[in-house]
Amino acid sequence: MQKQVEYLEAIKTKYPEQVVIAVAKDKNGKANPVTLGWTMIVSGNPPMMAIAVAKKHYSIDAITHSKCFTVAFPSEDMADAALFFGSRSGRKVDKFAEFDCATEPASQIDSVLLTDAVANFECRLESQTDAGDHTIFIGKIVCSHASTEPKKRLYTVGPGHKLGPAS
Amino acid sequence: MQKQVEYLEAIKTKYPEQVVIAVAKDKNGKANPVTLGWTMIVSGNPPMMAIAVAKKHYSIDAITHSKCFTVAFPSEDMADAALFFGSRSGRKVDKFAEFDCATEPASQIDSVLLTDAVANFECRLESQTDAGDHTIFIGKIVCSHASTEPKKRLYTVGPGHKLGPAS
Repeated sequence: MQKQVEYLEAIKTKYPEQVVIAVAKDKNGKANPVTLGWTMIVSGNPPMMAIAVAKKHYSIDAITHSKCFTVAFPSEDMADAALFFGSRSGRKVDKFAEFDCATEPASQIDSVLLTDAVANFECRLESQTDAGDHTIFIGKIVCSHASTEPKKRLYTVGPGHKLGPAS
Repeated sequence: MQKQVEYLEAIKTKYPEQVVIAVAKDKNGKANPVTLGWTMIVSGNPPMMAIAVAKKHYSIDAITHSKCFTVAFPSEDMADAALFFGSRSGRKVDKFAEFDCATEPASQIDSVLLTDAVANFECRLESQTDAGDHTIFIGKIVCSHASTEPKKRLYTVGPGHKLGPAS
């Protein structure tokens, strides 16, 4: 049976929610990672992904500048990196300089891959659109990478940025 | 370590992937449900959600006509309904007439809620945008509902539309 409730009550049922780390270089060439839960695949042919980024976030500037971004699926053992990248602002700090997280250059876009992620998708910005307090960036996937070791994705498993395996 | 692979190989790491059932009425007033994995929250204030619908799907006609849609989080025991709604076309069949799935009227939009879902979100269409072989519909959540009994969401847990609990 359904009962009408406040949105914030109903949305508590969403967990586990996927986590990605999106990376884009700013105008100074600094790669800036941000942890996001609001993301989806949006096209199969060609493969495309979308991410929703809060309008106040520095990543808006970086993606708008570089017109490309990496979408990485962090692995279960990357919870601390995901929390760090999601709680600091690239306006104030160089997140990759402050938190030890292996990266390597992307091959088709001017961004970096996360070496220990489950997978990385190199996206060229196709379009962007407004949605309330977020901007949706839609990217065409131009190159894909996967971990050479078997790894599982990281999820948000409960309120308060509680991260862990989905199962 | 990362290795460059085909997109279809890299994207196999995405599971578990959330499942929603979106419902919109067509021009004849028939409520048409469709099962989707490509969906995300896109705004916190106001609350908004986005869904990506394949351009060939009948739901495009229904949502474009009614300018609103329900997003339901199916529960773990709704796997058969999710499979049915995701594998039939509303152009050919009345899915709710052919598959026994309890519904009730939405309160703020002209659509229905799924009575046995974990939660239902009534969305008014705000905008839509093109993304490859899909259309992204962005809706403002105008009313929310949750199950009166505790329930867990249904996920796609592996390739071939394998559905089940995330954990």
